[in-house]
Amino acid sequence: MKPLKIALLGCGVVGSQVARLVDEQSADLAARIGAPLELAGIAVRRPNRHADVPPGLLTDDAAGLVARDDIDLVVEVIGGIEPARTLLLSALEGGKSVVTANKALLAEDGATLHDAAAKAGVDLYYEASVAGAIPLLRPLRESLAGDRILRVIGIVNGTTNFILSRMDATGAGFDEALAEATALGYAEADPSADVDGFDAAAKAAILAGLAFHTRVTAADVYREGIGDVTAADVAGAKAMDCTVKLLAICERVTSESGDQVSARVHPAMIPRSHPLAGVGDAFNAVFVEAEAAGSLMFYGRGAGGAPTASAVLGDLVAVARNRVTGSRGAGESAYADLPILSIGDVRTRYHLALDVADQPGVLAAVAGAFADEHVSISTVRQEGRGDAATLVLVTHGACDAALARTVRRLSDMAAVRRVAGVLRVEGMAAE
Amino acid sequence: MKPLKIALLGCGVVGSQVARLVDEQSADLAARIGAPLELAGIAVRRPNRHADVPPGLLTDDAAGLVARDDIDLVVEVIGGIEPARTLLLSALEGGKSVVTANKALLAEDGATLHDAAAKAGVDLYYEASVAGAIPLLRPLRESLAGDRILRVIGIVNGTTNFILSRMDATGAGFDEALAEATALGYAEADPSADVDGFDAAAKAAILAGLAFHTRVTAADVYREGIGDVTAADVAGAKAMDCTVKLLAICERVTSESGDQVSARVHPAMIPRSHPLAGVGDAFNAVFVEAEAAGSLMFYGRGAGGAPTASAVLGDLVAVARNRVTGSRGAGESAYADLPILSIGDVRTRYHLALDVADQPGVLAAVAGAFADEHVSISTVRQEGRGDAATLVLVTHGACDAALARTVRRLSDMAAVRRVAGVLRVEGMAAE
Repeated sequence: MKPLKIALLGCGVVGSQVARLVDEQSADLAARIGAPLELAGIAVRRPNRHADVPPGLLTDDAAGLVARDDIDLVVEVIGGIEPARTLLLSALEGGKSVVTANKALLAEDGATLHDAAAKAGVDLYYEASVAGAIPLLRPLRESLAGDRILRVIGIVNGTTNFILSRMDATGAGFDEALAEATALGYAEADPSADVDGFDAAAKAAILAGLAFHTRVTAADVYREGIGDVTAADVAGAKAMDCTVKLLAICERVTSESGDQVSARVHPAMIPRSHPLAGVGDAFNAVFVEAEAAGSLMFYGRGAGGAPTASAVLGDLVAVARNRVTGSRGAGESAYADLPILSIGDVRTRYHLALDVADQPGVLAAVAGAFADEHVSISTVRQEGRGDAATLVLVTHGACDAALARTVRRLSDMAAVRRVAGVLRVEGMAAE
Repeated sequence: MKPLKIALLGCGVVGSQVARLVDEQSADLAARIGAPLELAGIAVRRPNRHADVPPGLLTDDAAGLVARDDIDLVVEVIGGIEPARTLLLSALEGGKSVVTANKALLAEDGATLHDAAAKAGVDLYYEASVAGAIPLLRPLRESLAGDRILRVIGIVNGTTNFILSRMDATGAGFDEALAEATALGYAEADPSADVDGFDAAAKAAILAGLAFHTRVTAADVYREGIGDVTAADVAGAKAMDCTVKLLAICERVTSESGDQVSARVHPAMIPRSHPLAGVGDAFNAVFVEAEAAGSLMFYGRGAGGAPTASAVLGDLVAVARNRVTGSRGAGESAYADLPILSIGDVRTRYHLALDVADQPGVLAAVAGAFADEHVSISTVRQEGRGDAATLVLVTHGACDAALARTVRRLSDMAAVRRVAGVLRVEGMAAE
């Protein structure tokens, strides 16, 4: 069989591992595909800085490499919107199948890529874009294709999970835990993409689209980072036998007017008994609830060169096999075309800590504020006395808008000195 | 699009759920496949006993149903070797694609079915045959197709996991826990297929074949059930901060003479910190270690009508899509053709409890027996004094044959009153 020629775009942490595996596993890959793979070129910004790959393969002309007639498959691990989008569109329009790990691009403009792939009759695979090595997109797209997915809850960002795990383990505040993550190389010099939830929001958009057969972009995802999570929040979670995690949540919300999609990223308390609670440090895990399958969980390394390259290689074998057999994998499935539920209408439970005046009638006044907004209280307890009195409340399921209005009422009350913490509670029954 | 017609063989716990989902999800399935599915016939032993499906579909002539010219896809959930094998061969030879949940048949004679599918150019999918709803075979076959899988360790039998979980929780003996499982419907009247490890061994054969791209049959799998696990074994595990699980283990063992495959099912202690340790009751979980991906875990419901039907439907969508596009999914990949490592050559760690005479020199004599067989001891502790003296030993990694010889030596020693328990220890470093 004639070799299938690969253009690799990017040769950093992931790309260099892709190049290594394509070389080291060549015999196995050829046997699994039915034809050998050949790395035909590697596009990088500075070709003289890559001593670890054969220099003859390196080029700084990515567009020229993608346009070469002899290229069958394009692997993109550059990341970011441009020039990745232009390069991949050129590849797809030129009849090349694409494997990409680019979550930002897929979440911002996946539709354009999917349309180009469909028009050209080629494959666009992107398992590596979410949760690194964990097989997740293929199970959602294929294994659960006959089921009705209700909810996907994931820990899909290792940096924030490391920070929150440290805060849980040591009682440290956010700044201290971030500094530790930075020192250990778990956080970037500019940690905003991770800490502010942008990375997780892109992944949530991809997961929601696959799970619910609809198009969801990063802009559709409600997003709160972990920068405001305090040591007191983490301690409050512990007191409830919970832990705080940054969750990417994709939900199908069914009402009389039909199904809607909620996609959101925010910190939340989850019970320590929940399978996601034990996922520590830089690991990722995704919990899926489907109507027939019930609860499923997928766990593994969500980042890193070799794990992410493993996911890229799995896709590479699939698209290469399709080339050999002249077929094409399942394309985008977005027929359901569901509306996005606004965050104000999302129902969850909430944990609130209120610094209050320790005097008769305060609880009645606080409870009245909740009642006025039709937010039902599940539990209340008072901690401390006198100046240190704090009311800790957990609500039943309430919509976000009503909770926000309740918090404004509470902030305006003389007896409430401070709304010290408001955090969603997930993974318990909604009511 | 013309509907794709399905013949359903079997309408018990799983089959009736398949029929229900094909009906209830018909609009979604049609959108995902690109053509509607139509249940054209259901073969059962006693057609008058199925009030829950349209009587016009029922037949007791399975062979006649499979042979019908208008059938595109055959779903088999009868189980067992015959008549399932004859029916599926007839289906495949007749150009029909097959979805089956039949682990026993695939583990005994998968090669014959795979060959027939390849010859006819049709699909043979069987995600539901292992670990119910958990997407596992597709990840092994496809997501990890570019990686080198080193080890698969699974809890793949819910009945035995329930029994061992109860023994761990309550201190009960095997007979008592089995009686509880039977009363609750977790164990069959004749529990041998589960308790003696036959069910798990069939699954281990399927997993090992997929993980290592080779053919493995149930007869290649070393098998020990849980009938000999005692309350003392479970207590001994607790003392080491371990728990006892029935594990299906598939390992790639690399030596100078090349790779070999070890596939085995037996009870073993695993550390409570291992992700599999927390998998309780009737849940299944499978832990996969791959060279590039690192550690992965898949968790969910391993049995039950709806969960298993979810896996069947996922396959059904895939093979139906392939029909629509005139393509075929990846077939069997058995090119590696690896030899099976004999159980005597498998290296693991062992936990031994020896009732001994409480007198000077006993430990030296016992240690000598291990040394004579080149089995290295990791830890020893003595429990109790006088008549109740017990030596508890944990070895470093040792091959099974040497351990068996050591146990024979120990049994023959005057100072050893009884070899009270021998259990493998998995999930720790091998040495």
